[in-house]
Amino acid sequence: MLIVPERDIADLMTRAAAFDAVEKVFAAMAAQEAYNFPVVREAIGHEDALYGFKGGFDRAGLTLGLKAGGYWPNNLEKRGLINHQSTVFLFDPDTGKPAAMVGGNLLTALRTAAASSVSIKHLARADARVIGMIGAGHQATFQLRAALEQRKFDKVIGWNFHPAMLPNIEKVATEAGVPFEPVALEGMQEADVIISITSAFAPSLMADHVSPGTHIACMGTDTKGKQEVEAALLARATVFTDEVAQSVSIGEAQHAVAQGLIAETDVQQLGAVINGTHPGRTSLNEITLFDGTGVGLQDLAVAAAVVDLAVEKGIAIEVDF
Amino acid sequence: MLIVPERDIADLMTRAAAFDAVEKVFAAMAAQEAYNFPVVREAIGHEDALYGFKGGFDRAGLTLGLKAGGYWPNNLEKRGLINHQSTVFLFDPDTGKPAAMVGGNLLTALRTAAASSVSIKHLARADARVIGMIGAGHQATFQLRAALEQRKFDKVIGWNFHPAMLPNIEKVATEAGVPFEPVALEGMQEADVIISITSAFAPSLMADHVSPGTHIACMGTDTKGKQEVEAALLARATVFTDEVAQSVSIGEAQHAVAQGLIAETDVQQLGAVINGTHPGRTSLNEITLFDGTGVGLQDLAVAAAVVDLAVEKGIAIEVDF
Repeated sequence: MLIVPERDIADLMTRAAAFDAVEKVFAAMAAQEAYNFPVVREAIGHEDALYGFKGGFDRAGLTLGLKAGGYWPNNLEKRGLINHQSTVFLFDPDTGKPAAMVGGNLLTALRTAAASSVSIKHLARADARVIGMIGAGHQATFQLRAALEQRKFDKVIGWNFHPAMLPNIEKVATEAGVPFEPVALEGMQEADVIISITSAFAPSLMADHVSPGTHIACMGTDTKGKQEVEAALLARATVFTDEVAQSVSIGEAQHAVAQGLIAETDVQQLGAVINGTHPGRTSLNEITLFDGTGVGLQDLAVAAAVVDLAVEKGIAIEVDF
Repeated sequence: MLIVPERDIADLMTRAAAFDAVEKVFAAMAAQEAYNFPVVREAIGHEDALYGFKGGFDRAGLTLGLKAGGYWPNNLEKRGLINHQSTVFLFDPDTGKPAAMVGGNLLTALRTAAASSVSIKHLARADARVIGMIGAGHQATFQLRAALEQRKFDKVIGWNFHPAMLPNIEKVATEAGVPFEPVALEGMQEADVIISITSAFAPSLMADHVSPGTHIACMGTDTKGKQEVEAALLARATVFTDEVAQSVSIGEAQHAVAQGLIAETDVQQLGAVINGTHPGRTSLNEITLFDGTGVGLQDLAVAAAVVDLAVEKGIAIEVDF
């Protein structure tokens, strides 16, 4: 079997490879050629850690396995390690034998960034020029960097609960040669594309902060109770997601569905747009919203891609298991 | 992180180490210091395979992780590989980083054998002399070999749906210097201990095949619909299990509970007997029954033990992950 340690991922993996892998697996999910297994997520009662497994099988890509790991909130302070720790294990779907083990920390950031990026490619207006960021943490820098490649953006605007963090995303904009401007939430009306990437339990972006024609990617909601945008915004928007079952239970759509503002059947798979079985955006004034809840198949897809790259470059560690 | 490949397990692991690991983790479960996560089990729609994850955390032993793998029914015929394929992954509960990867095939056989063996130690009469085997497949040989160490057995009797397989267990008996005799199911009345290890969906052992004072270990029932013994036998017996929730839903107790013959509260944890918080057998005429459904914590416990042994002998493969 092959091993690709965390330290090798940064040199191997590209945003383009992550984008392709995530776009393909969203398409496979919508074509019912790939599916995610039930998610296991446990508060283990030690170090305040959350630990679990996200598995799946992609019959099209022949990718089988899981991401295992979670959140260890004391890692950074106690040990100088990052708090999110995950590892991807791939299995040979023909035999059940382990095929690869891959560091999953950077990959998780890249696959999450790729997801909003894929949604922008397929749902944002072609003439989108202003991108708005809600959230300015570590993951926000990945989202913005990937998003900037999808349209000819000429301005980044940003809001964060703690404004002191805004330089994180300003730096990304500056490096890409795009001017950055901090705004109040009302200022998001200027944006053609908005990415919300917070871990909030109350909405920041309200329906009247959003102009007609905007595409919004909500990337921070993956737990019961979490919420980034006002539920009324989902009623105004055409709602897409990676996985409908997650979107309506633990994703951004949970609130709009619970309040009866939209039905589960109003939530479409982004993969259907990729496959051409759903038209996606049908007018310049339509608001589109992507509820990116994050699925195990994304992790498997980028891990499989990085294993291929590691083999190509001859740096995968081979262990006779 | 450390790697112990499947090929090294046979030389490293001992029945005694497996017994100790399983006994300890059953005790930790009953003391609520260890718990199993929800089991994921999926028919993946490829090679007729069943694949999934059994995870858990033992706060007492600080063992965290999962067994991943399943059943690939075409492996043997198509590829000369065994059909059951599994791998155990251990994580550092302090940091969430992967700690070890261990071949899980032989370990699964050993931990299953250890479970019935632990039940015999704690529940069979001290003067048990005749052990009866129902089932004579590959796993039955592991069960019998381990069981023979628990009491001074002077006779093995055996029944199998296909009598042609009985030489499998006769060989184990002979190697242990104990005479073997094939019997009809009614002949099980002679047994002081009975191990049932089949994958049947209808009962073989009926209540009137069992004499007072017998201990029965039902080791083959881990799925809805499977059944090895008549439900009425559970009503006659004091019922113990590894995990109550599994016992009453997918274990041998599912049928007796569904038929209202026993209640969930009638099923006791074997770990409570180990811990001394349940008296276990209280009379020579009592029938005791252990419903061994198999839990992820057993896999983690034996994997942790074999990693220790591999480190001791200096043969664990170390990978800088």
